[in-house]
Amino acid sequence: MLSVEQARAQILSAIKATGPETVALANAAGRVLATPVMARLTQPPADLSAMDGYAIRAADGVEKAILSIIGTAPAGHPFAGHVSAGQAVRLFTGSVIPNGADTVIIQENVTRQNDTITVNEAAGAAKNIRRAGQDFATGDVLIPAGKLLTARDIGLAAAGNHPWVTVHRRPKIAILATGDEISLPGEAIAAGGIVSSNAHMLAAFVTAAGGEPVVLPIARDDITAIADGADAARGADMLVTTGGASVGDHDLVQPALQARGLSLDFWKIAMRPGKPLMFGNLGEMPVLGLPGNPVSAFVCALLFLQPAIAALGGLPGTAPTTETARLGAALKPNDQREDYVRAHLHRDSDGWVATPFGMQDSGMLRTLANAGALIKRPAFDAARGTGVAVEIIRLGALGI
Amino acid sequence: MLSVEQARAQILSAIKATGPETVALANAAGRVLATPVMARLTQPPADLSAMDGYAIRAADGVEKAILSIIGTAPAGHPFAGHVSAGQAVRLFTGSVIPNGADTVIIQENVTRQNDTITVNEAAGAAKNIRRAGQDFATGDVLIPAGKLLTARDIGLAAAGNHPWVTVHRRPKIAILATGDEISLPGEAIAAGGIVSSNAHMLAAFVTAAGGEPVVLPIARDDITAIADGADAARGADMLVTTGGASVGDHDLVQPALQARGLSLDFWKIAMRPGKPLMFGNLGEMPVLGLPGNPVSAFVCALLFLQPAIAALGGLPGTAPTTETARLGAALKPNDQREDYVRAHLHRDSDGWVATPFGMQDSGMLRTLANAGALIKRPAFDAARGTGVAVEIIRLGALGI
Repeated sequence: MLSVEQARAQILSAIKATGPETVALANAAGRVLATPVMARLTQPPADLSAMDGYAIRAADGVEKAILSIIGTAPAGHPFAGHVSAGQAVRLFTGSVIPNGADTVIIQENVTRQNDTITVNEAAGAAKNIRRAGQDFATGDVLIPAGKLLTARDIGLAAAGNHPWVTVHRRPKIAILATGDEISLPGEAIAAGGIVSSNAHMLAAFVTAAGGEPVVLPIARDDITAIADGADAARGADMLVTTGGASVGDHDLVQPALQARGLSLDFWKIAMRPGKPLMFGNLGEMPVLGLPGNPVSAFVCALLFLQPAIAALGGLPGTAPTTETARLGAALKPNDQREDYVRAHLHRDSDGWVATPFGMQDSGMLRTLANAGALIKRPAFDAARGTGVAVEIIRLGALGI
Repeated sequence: MLSVEQARAQILSAIKATGPETVALANAAGRVLATPVMARLTQPPADLSAMDGYAIRAADGVEKAILSIIGTAPAGHPFAGHVSAGQAVRLFTGSVIPNGADTVIIQENVTRQNDTITVNEAAGAAKNIRRAGQDFATGDVLIPAGKLLTARDIGLAAAGNHPWVTVHRRPKIAILATGDEISLPGEAIAAGGIVSSNAHMLAAFVTAAGGEPVVLPIARDDITAIADGADAARGADMLVTTGGASVGDHDLVQPALQARGLSLDFWKIAMRPGKPLMFGNLGEMPVLGLPGNPVSAFVCALLFLQPAIAALGGLPGTAPTTETARLGAALKPNDQREDYVRAHLHRDSDGWVATPFGMQDSGMLRTLANAGALIKRPAFDAARGTGVAVEIIRLGALGI
């Protein structure tokens, strides 16, 4: 059996980032930049006032000096003339510093009377001026390729005069749930059957990870039905199946996809919950076969699908970030499988406390939905007592 | 001047959550539940097998016992008969436990020959069975109102047989940028003018915070133009303006909105960057007036707009979560204003290290976009040396 780390590395080595597309800047937040954004102008474009006040010559800005106001220059309306000795121009935040002036005295430090100001506090040289190019200059790389665009980046690209940006295409992830026992919510449920939770859980997961989900119709436990589902996934950047990936008589995903040309890379991982997990390629399309149990499917999605979507989308694919917590209850020794233990999470004055749920059955979706964290336990981890530090994946922080 | 905390409390006290709407479960991730999701069925619906194996009577599951296979029951195809002494039914993960059987012996622990199995390892009582209702029972509250729906919640609502859920309407936030000096990216730029970065930065911010942005056309520095912008915001849950919120001769947002009936709540906060900030109501619509400088606008959005959108959307509105970091460079004493210092952030073996940028000018959007964190400094904070612990807001973790 492969380790989680080995399996993730194999998956990531099989993945290429999607190609570029041009999108309106207004739609680019959360996308991954494919082409650097270079400044198309210098910012500020000229020396600008950082305050409301008066542009003067610093030599005039001495206490009790009386200066005559020769004009007003709101932001966006530069003063066309020249400021000479004994003169001042009224400015506002963002106004261009007029020729001849070399400092800005703030309005709180003068007394105005009609068209003159009296200086109450010395101005100082070169005060309250934002210099041309202080933020960036034409040609500067404002945002490098490969960056996940934040709201701040959108503002920066706008300031650099870009109405459009080039980003990686959102990876399209086809999701194929299989099984005779599952129905969609609101549809008829067979005797002994259950409602399918995986397909739409994974669709929401894919969206949160930056992908575009395509939920395929449920495939019955039938070689042809599953193979038809794989056909319906053509054009997707990845096919994700759930259920039927083991070797039971009724686990038909492998033979069905092999009939369509699947080249199988691996299908067993030393982890709990989550065995078995299948990975391979159908032509150029990577295929990830997740377990049918919703808890196992979610944990495998977190460990393998999230990094795969990141890599497809142009980001580095990495293991989920872990943090440290103290155990709120003891854990028995672990066996040969890496274990992801569902836990309640709370914070006390010393940091996070993770308390494993008593029942860890991989069918228990409610327990998973209520879990604040997964405790990550290495294979063969010794028994751990209450209060001991453990590694956790904080699910709340991931928005999934 | 108000403190940041007082201003946030005043804003939140003026806000009511949006009403409910019914959405398809597939579109509900990231929305806030308005009506609890109750289980419409019991899960599992019956005792189910947790493994691939054979349903038998535990009394028969002794070493070397030979049992006859009387049927096969794949998941979704329950066995209609009864398991008597000496008999076994082939099961798979998710199969219903047939009548008469009281344990499942896993396939690895038997040897099958035609229609019999030989027990190689004692079965034990009540093994490998998921009990009916182990996850939840009809009528259980699966997800309480007020919860931000995760991918796991979507799976849980599906499992509870809900094709639709009732969520709070996404708060519609109208954004009105004002100023004679600003243009949209790609449009003509006036002499001394700059490209508007606030409107689309804030639109992306609103989306990330769970709101629905409406970007209004830029309003020139003209009372009528700004008042017309406010008219265009009717029907929104909140109006956010940027620029023109001070008291300079060209700061026209207050008089323009007052002409339309704005009841002004406050307009000065003891913080940096960010003064002035305006808050009030136009009829039933809250109005938040942000500063025009993009850095100030962003910091005010983080401290006031994000909690306001959360509260409009049915969540508790709270201050941004802070974490602890060590200073990577010294800070001078602070004045009477709470300060949000842009900083580079990196992690070493002892945790986060926040290094304040040398220039903190509120016009420098590139510095903001590159900041990993804001260091939050209380008013009158003493000088702090390198290595001292400070409170930070980790911007990367917020996805903005």
